[in-house]
Amino acid sequence: MNINRVTNVLKKMGAMDLKQLLITDPMSINYLTGYYTFPHERFLGLLLRADGNHVLFLNKLFFLTQDPGVELSWHSDTDPVMDMVAEYLLPGETLGVDKLMAAKFLVPLMDNEKTGKIVLGSICVDEARGAKDAEEIEKMREASRINDLAMDRLKKLIRPGVTEIEIADQLLDIYKELGADGHSFDPIVAFGPNGADGHHSPDNTVLKEGDSIIFDVGCIKNGYCSDMTRTFFAGVPSERDRQVYETCLKAHKEAIAMIKPGIPLSSIDGTARGIITAAGYGKEFNHRLGHFIGQEVHEFGDVSSKNERLTEPGMIFSIEPGIYLRDEMGVRIENLVVVTEDGVEELNHYTREFEDMCVDF
Amino acid sequence: MNINRVTNVLKKMGAMDLKQLLITDPMSINYLTGYYTFPHERFLGLLLRADGNHVLFLNKLFFLTQDPGVELSWHSDTDPVMDMVAEYLLPGETLGVDKLMAAKFLVPLMDNEKTGKIVLGSICVDEARGAKDAEEIEKMREASRINDLAMDRLKKLIRPGVTEIEIADQLLDIYKELGADGHSFDPIVAFGPNGADGHHSPDNTVLKEGDSIIFDVGCIKNGYCSDMTRTFFAGVPSERDRQVYETCLKAHKEAIAMIKPGIPLSSIDGTARGIITAAGYGKEFNHRLGHFIGQEVHEFGDVSSKNERLTEPGMIFSIEPGIYLRDEMGVRIENLVVVTEDGVEELNHYTREFEDMCVDF
Repeated sequence: MNINRVTNVLKKMGAMDLKQLLITDPMSINYLTGYYTFPHERFLGLLLRADGNHVLFLNKLFFLTQDPGVELSWHSDTDPVMDMVAEYLLPGETLGVDKLMAAKFLVPLMDNEKTGKIVLGSICVDEARGAKDAEEIEKMREASRINDLAMDRLKKLIRPGVTEIEIADQLLDIYKELGADGHSFDPIVAFGPNGADGHHSPDNTVLKEGDSIIFDVGCIKNGYCSDMTRTFFAGVPSERDRQVYETCLKAHKEAIAMIKPGIPLSSIDGTARGIITAAGYGKEFNHRLGHFIGQEVHEFGDVSSKNERLTEPGMIFSIEPGIYLRDEMGVRIENLVVVTEDGVEELNHYTREFEDMCVDF
Repeated sequence: MNINRVTNVLKKMGAMDLKQLLITDPMSINYLTGYYTFPHERFLGLLLRADGNHVLFLNKLFFLTQDPGVELSWHSDTDPVMDMVAEYLLPGETLGVDKLMAAKFLVPLMDNEKTGKIVLGSICVDEARGAKDAEEIEKMREASRINDLAMDRLKKLIRPGVTEIEIADQLLDIYKELGADGHSFDPIVAFGPNGADGHHSPDNTVLKEGDSIIFDVGCIKNGYCSDMTRTFFAGVPSERDRQVYETCLKAHKEAIAMIKPGIPLSSIDGTARGIITAAGYGKEFNHRLGHFIGQEVHEFGDVSSKNERLTEPGMIFSIEPGIYLRDEMGVRIENLVVVTEDGVEELNHYTREFEDMCVDF
């Protein structure tokens, strides 16, 4: 157990009047205990209790390479595991659960008479994970440094006749050559109209002159993730497309420029959205401005109109405005940023100026 | 909507006295509607209602390429999505939910006054998915045919000095050459003592003479998965290791030989476990005998001592007994099988005889 991190979470539990919290997110368990396994459909849980009697629930199929320094409760595939968990609960006491806990575990736990009221409590650990320490920030810088280099390699693959999948298939080797451990998510390569789908999977679409080209890619290095998007053009795009790009870029830059500790995350989204809306593309920016990132590419916390939480030093999130013109094209520009003691540091340094985005074709 | 499949699920809901079922598993939604997206942390849900007024809940960021033939309810990242879902519920009526539904969605839904009692109801769609039709079986045969060929290619990579990760890193290219679309799961390559960890991730361990070598690998082809395990040996193993292998192989073969429609899945596990226990390795076989598989590598249903469900034609599952000697070695032998009208068909045909498993070293 990482005592500092556990103490921090217990303090947040106290502020919520929670005496017990059941954590099922493997990454949060890793963060608190140093033990990581992906449990697939099996149960993995860490019960934190205010009295200090914490318990880690493990399937016998999981493999412990070191003592995680906490009481262990082992179960097999055929044990009534949630009844075993309920034995450790404070009877009738409110139980905080993890946002990811699956209904197949939660419903049987609710049905156990020992279980009190259930509330969402993972915010206690999620908020702790949101503000990175110096070591984590350094790892994030390194992952983004590699991603900057990878983006330049991707740009060089743009040529007449190339397909999305051909480019996407080369990225893993590029990352490995650059020293990364792998993708942090399935890369998005989207040409022309495909760029209007924020989650497009690379396919056999062939690049055509004038197309917008979205690369939304990230790698993992030493357990931490990068995530960056650039939008290139095959040749010189239309004047309309240039205006869309410049609008998105202005929103991106002005949102970043305002970041410092103590401002509502919603205000950052508001700045970017205001610029895009003023240009007439408010409806075409159909998602939040950014998401938190660290051990996982999407972590708790976002930069959206509804998130009034204040920025704190160490928070790392993406700034990624987009404008999507259905059946035509899409633009998205994304950097990762870290909130510093008195402002902001960008983790990506790859160019995003319009003239650099137009590739000879 | 696939009317036959939906009708089948509604019939199973009727048998459970369920008038409404909220499905969140993207693969089940794909199975019923032909629409697939992976929603990440966002909400995707299909509400099936006995009155035929079904609703698909989508985030505005998701992209529909075709009309799924069902009422759509769109939400944005900032909408109170579970309150929107609750508007469609039959007030006070029991609601079935999906086993995968995350607490972040389930707890707010529970807290809404329109929501009645919540029960686990995904079995209605999971059981429907468990028995494959002829088209699905043919796709499963093809994915396993490729996997047989890939296993032979892996065997040829066994040589002094090779590491686990070197072999694992070549498998994706092998699959693509053989016509597969990708891995169905991260491949397991485990040498010697690493083989005692059922979920070992390939690392820089170097192969040594006498080591057991586990390859647990699968590909995806046309949306369906394969999954097979073979255990090789670097040179000639010890007499003890040979006995462990032959015990595991006997359990594997006898379990498969007994399969036909109408027998409890638990009895198949019992046959394999009985053989391994009689040989003195009962504790070292620390998992269930098999799992169902299809669109996903692990689907609902398993072959375990607690599953009294009867076999039905079309069911496809793995038969994968294992014996794990901590800090020493591991053996696992796995084929996929399909229950036929009067018996069983194996989907894998790659050799599993002891003499074929010993590789010159």
